[in-house]
This record gives sequence, C-alpha cells and structure tokens, in this order.
Amino acid sequence: MKDFQVPKRVLLGPGPSPVDDRILRALSQPLLGHLDPLFLEIMDEIQVLLRKVFETKNRLTIPISGTGSAGMEASLINVLEPGDKAVVCIHGVFGERMFDIVGRTGAEPTAVRAEWGRPVDVNQIEDALKQTRPRVLAIVHAETSTGVLQNLKGLSELANRYGALLVVDAVTSLGGHPVSVDANGIDVCYSGTQKCLACPPGLSPITFSDRAVERIRARGHKVQSWYLDMSMIEKYWGSDRSYHHTAPISMNYALLEALRIVQEEGLEARWARHELNHRAFVTGIEAMGLSMLVAPGSRLWSLNAVSIPEGVDDQKLRTHLLEHQSIEIGGGLGPLKGKVWRVGLMGAGSTRENVVLALGAIHDALKAQGYDCPSGVANAERVYDRGEQATGG
Amino acid sequence: MKDFQVPKRVLLGPGPSPVDDRILRALSQPLLGHLDPLFLEIMDEIQVLLRKVFETKNRLTIPISGTGSAGMEASLINVLEPGDKAVVCIHGVFGERMFDIVGRTGAEPTAVRAEWGRPVDVNQIEDALKQTRPRVLAIVHAETSTGVLQNLKGLSELANRYGALLVVDAVTSLGGHPVSVDANGIDVCYSGTQKCLACPPGLSPITFSDRAVERIRARGHKVQSWYLDMSMIEKYWGSDRSYHHTAPISMNYALLEALRIVQEEGLEARWARHELNHRAFVTGIEAMGLSMLVAPGSRLWSLNAVSIPEGVDDQKLRTHLLEHQSIEIGGGLGPLKGKVWRVGLMGAGSTRENVVLALGAIHDALKAQGYDCPSGVANAERVYDRGEQATGG
Repeated sequence: MKDFQVPKRVLLGPGPSPVDDRILRALSQPLLGHLDPLFLEIMDEIQVLLRKVFETKNRLTIPISGTGSAGMEASLINVLEPGDKAVVCIHGVFGERMFDIVGRTGAEPTAVRAEWGRPVDVNQIEDALKQTRPRVLAIVHAETSTGVLQNLKGLSELANRYGALLVVDAVTSLGGHPVSVDANGIDVCYSGTQKCLACPPGLSPITFSDRAVERIRARGHKVQSWYLDMSMIEKYWGSDRSYHHTAPISMNYALLEALRIVQEEGLEARWARHELNHRAFVTGIEAMGLSMLVAPGSRLWSLNAVSIPEGVDDQKLRTHLLEHQSIEIGGGLGPLKGKVWRVGLMGAGSTRENVVLALGAIHDALKAQGYDCPSGVANAERVYDRGEQATGG
Repeated sequence: MKDFQVPKRVLLGPGPSPVDDRILRALSQPLLGHLDPLFLEIMDEIQVLLRKVFETKNRLTIPISGTGSAGMEASLINVLEPGDKAVVCIHGVFGERMFDIVGRTGAEPTAVRAEWGRPVDVNQIEDALKQTRPRVLAIVHAETSTGVLQNLKGLSELANRYGALLVVDAVTSLGGHPVSVDANGIDVCYSGTQKCLACPPGLSPITFSDRAVERIRARGHKVQSWYLDMSMIEKYWGSDRSYHHTAPISMNYALLEALRIVQEEGLEARWARHELNHRAFVTGIEAMGLSMLVAPGSRLWSLNAVSIPEGVDDQKLRTHLLEHQSIEIGGGLGPLKGKVWRVGLMGAGSTRENVVLALGAIHDALKAQGYDCPSGVANAERVYDRGEQATGG
C-alpha cells in the first residue's frame, strides 16, 4: 500500500494558491463530529476571525460549505425573489456568472458592461439603478478573469439612493486587498478560501449585513436552494446549533488555521506585501518589454494579467513552465483565451522569491520559443532593494 | 505559533466516521491546480473507482463539491422542472428533506409516509405512482435518522411501469451495504463521503443513468442552481475539462485514497464486515435488555438505533461517553429526539474493537445513572468467536 503523493507545484495561477504546511497539518487532524463541543468552539473562532478579515461586525458571517461559486450563488439567491430586479456589473467571467445566477432566481437582471480588462463605469451603474430601481446591485471587486480591481468607493451610497442592496464578489481580493465590508457599506460579500486566504479550495466565506438579513426574513418564497438557504444555515452557526447539513470538518480546520495566520501577519502588513510583490512583478514584466492587460490604478495585486506577445504560443509556454519548473500560471478565459497569462501572487504565494522565480521562468520559456527579450529580474529586485520593506520567502 | 490540534474521538455517531491515517495524509498533500494534468488523472481514477463502489457503468459518475445534502439537491433539481410531479417516500429526516427540495424546484411532490423506524410500504408507493404518474420516484435507501434499510428490489420496475426515474439516497449505505445501482435499476444515486466510505465530509458522490442524462438534456428550463447544474459540471469531469468551479482539490485527494482503500478490502468483504459488527452489536444490546428501534430485516448495518430505556437521561449519557471515553454517539432527531441513540458502525469505525468498546461504555454510562443491566460484551464476543470471520481493529 503505497501512500498517495503529489509533487509540490509553485502555484502562480488564478488559484488554488500555495498552502502553508501549518494549514496542511491542520487539515490532517483527526475528525470531530459536527456537533462536538470542541468543533462548536472552532466554529466560534472561525466566525470571530472571518469578521476581522471582512472588517465587519455582521453577525451572519460564516463559511459556506462549497467553493467560491457556491458563495456567489448563496449571496444572490437569498436576497432575490422571483420578479425582483437586479443590476449586475459585467467585466469578466464572474460578472457573467452572477448574471446567469440572477436569471435562475426568477429575478430580472440588467447588465452594465465594461470591456474585459477595464473597470465598470460608475455613471453607467447609476443610470441602470435609476432606470430599474432594483433590489440588488451586484459587482465583482476582483475580476479573476481579467485582473481588474473595481473601486468600491461610493457604490453603497449609490445603491442606497436607489434602494438596492450591494452584493460584492471578493473572491480574489479578501486577505490580499482591503475589502472593508462595513466601511464600504457592503450588504453581502463572499470570497473563496483558495486565493489570498491561502487555504485549499472548498469553502466560501460570506457575510450579510443586518439589512440583508432583514431582506431574507421578509421573503415571500423559500430560497430556491435548500443547501444554500441562509435562514436554515444560520441556525447551525447561531446559538441554536441545530443540524442543517454535516459541515466539512477538515476544511473548517484548515480555514481556522489560515485565518490565524492572516491574523498573525496583520491585515495591513498582508495588503502591503501583496502590493509590493505585485509592483515588483509588473516592473519586471515591463522591463522585459511585455505589457499588462489592465491600466495602472485598476490592477489587482493578487492577479496579474500579462498580455501575450505576438507570435508566442500560449499553451506551449504554460506547459513549458509546468514541465520544466513545476510552475503553474493561468491562461485567459473567454475573449482573453490565448491573449493573456494570469499570474497569481496570492496569499502565501505572494513572495519576493516567487516574483523572481516567475520572471526568470517566463523569460526562459519565451526564449525557448525563440522570443528574445531582456530579463526583468534585476528590475524587480531593485523595487525590493529600494529601501522598501522586503517580504519573506 | 502552536500547531492546530484536536483530540482523537471514537466516532460512533451518524457521521463523520473515523478516518484512516492514510486518508489524512492524502488530505495534507500539497495543492495542485484544478486543471493540472496530474489532477485530471486523479479525477479519472476517482471516476473509475466511484463506478466500482456504486456498481454502475454510468458515464456521469462524479463527486459533487458539497456534502451529502448538496448531492441530494443535485439529484432532484437536475431531473425535475416546474410543473413536474414527484413521489417522495418519507420515513425520516432525509425523506422530509427530499420533499422540501422537490417543492423548491416548482415541481409538485406527493408524500408516501411510513412511521419513523419502519420502511415504506411498496403497495402505497405503487398507489401513489398510479395516481400521479410522476417524473420521479425518490426514496432513501439508508435512513440515517432511524436506522432503517429500505429494500430496493422491485422499485425500478415499479418506477418504470409508471414512467418515473428512480432517485435513491445512499448516503449511509454506500460502501457498507450493497447499493448496486445498475442491478437495482437506479437512475440517480448519491451518497456522502463521511459515512461508510470513511472519508471526511465535504463531497457527495453521485451517479446518473443514461436515462437520467437524457432527461437533463431534454430540459426546457435551466436548472435552478448554477453550482449544481450537471449539464455544466459534466463538462469539467468529461473530456472537455472546461472550467466550471474550482474543485475542492484536497478533498478529492482524500476521496481517491478512501476509494482505493475500499477497493483493496473488496466490496463484498466490506459489506460482510459491516454486517458482522452490526450483528455483534445488536446481540450485545439485546443481552443488556435494551431494544433496537427497527425490526430485524429492516436494520441498517451502518447505523444502529437503540431505544433509550425509561428513566435514562439521553443527553447526560452522551455527554458521559464523550467526556469519559471520548466516544461520540448520536441522539435522535425530530420525533425520535430523546427516544433513541444512533450508534454508527461505519467504514473504518465498523470494527470488533469498537463494538466491544461501545457496549462496555454504554453499560458503564447507564450504571453511572443508576440504571442497572447486564453487560452485553461477552454476548457480542461470542458472535465473533462462533467461528465467523473476525474483523480487524
């Protein structure tokens, strides 16, 4: 009976991101029952730490027992009912996904679109709100498919003015960028564990404002999903502790350990680390003569979309990185397929060591295809050496 | 930074069941990307081994990225559309849950009820099928809330006669009892990982017959859940490998290792082990003067519902077991709350050692409450010693 083993990849794609050994050890702890007093304590601590990372006081803050897309679904279907209207901002795969989910609730979605690679225009959002007076305004904070960071400032005032709840996808930002649920007036916010929280995929942290909870209480119809019905799930995570479904015990161990690590580092320090490594990476990429898909000011620190130069074979380069250096980077999705690489510098993967490694490896892999360009490594190193706070490997 | 640690419980409740160290080691392997060629190989092997444990040739056989209840929801919402009819058999919590989910699809459920602790009557099922000519007949094979095993023989002929698909909940039977999807003509069957498959909770193995897949293809409406929409999920698990949601990588490692262990033991040997340990346990319980909730012939091997004797405090006894011996057993749900204990002998937990331990511990805990009865341990030991195949500890 040989043991199950997989090689250690350098995960610099759109997620999962690399996971600290501490978290893997937590994951492999013996099982507890889902109503064991010790597990209930673990749940309590997870809630406390999730509130810290979301920067919220929201009581209803829990991990959904599914990946980020389950959180997306839970966030929309619990506050929308058949006949409701929703404005959905679309500037990538995940906005499209929100739009699809809204349609399945029996609500009527209105799309506000931006070109993939650009943020959504606030004036267009306001026009759509004015026209439709929707129940919900849904927007992706960190578009994993394009690397765009959407500025959240002012959105809650807009949403409030037209009577809408603000639903925000923070899958690729939570723990790497400020999300600041309360300060930004977000009503429903969800994330995934496998990005900047640096935990394996399988859970989706989610938080509902009191206003969103009131909306849930005022529903006229049952939520279309039993599995994701917050009115029942909150009884297990609340003081009732009444059984809903069996929680994914081991994944909750991992999440708790991941949240403790975030706490130990501190949110500000973590954001600064993500920003610095992003800046060094972009400096290196541009020194190589390559360009970023997204304009400065709208770039995610956690997900870097690099335009693929003319004449370079996308798949061949990514296979080269994987086979020669065991490095994973992501390809483009939808209209960006073959046009960008998505380089994730997320969670434990956002390090100086990985930036230098990725820049060197991409340079080598380009060379292997006969594409000649300068190396960007020294330029990236200078960003770190410029007296700025370096980050551990 | 102290490491995350939990004590090792003896998990003899309704699940999660104890998990082999091999599986915990698999769980803690480094992460792979969800499109990494090595992960795709893991997915292929999972599918091959899931077909073996379900005893099916069904192409569409995968683990759903959620716990057993997500599998229940996926099994019903993919084959039902608004306006459809469904006959739902209810003899415990999980039949009630199916009924609730069917209602949320916009389909019209008809209940066929049996007293909790008894199987559902086939004649009543036929009457309901005859009257409603439904799209679906849904039934729980192993009612975790009561310990009842529902005989599946003849149900597919009945369902076929009236044009219904047969949907079966095998959460607490798969890997411990024969489920035999193809031989029993089951159209949709789902399970959970944390019962007789002896893996942590977090995934729900599911299988769809070609007839069920045709039904999905013929749908007029989108499935109400994006996350559980099999027409999209099957493209990731099929030859397309197109991204749907990020698979819970680590949980899939664990499932693969769990399925390999099932394969190494052999299905027949595993069923025989579950049966023998169940028989020894029941012999011990009855020798103590206690009684089983379920009549012989309808008892699950994996979940043993013991009637709580008059005058004994349910919660006090369970707390005693947990605090003094770190043993978890389950309490009753719904109308059986305070009336039964649910003792799980599932997967790696179904051992002679655990049977002896549980009988001794229950005896001690009863004594601590002043309830005097003989010990059942020697009687149970005799079942093993009667020349029958013993099982490892």
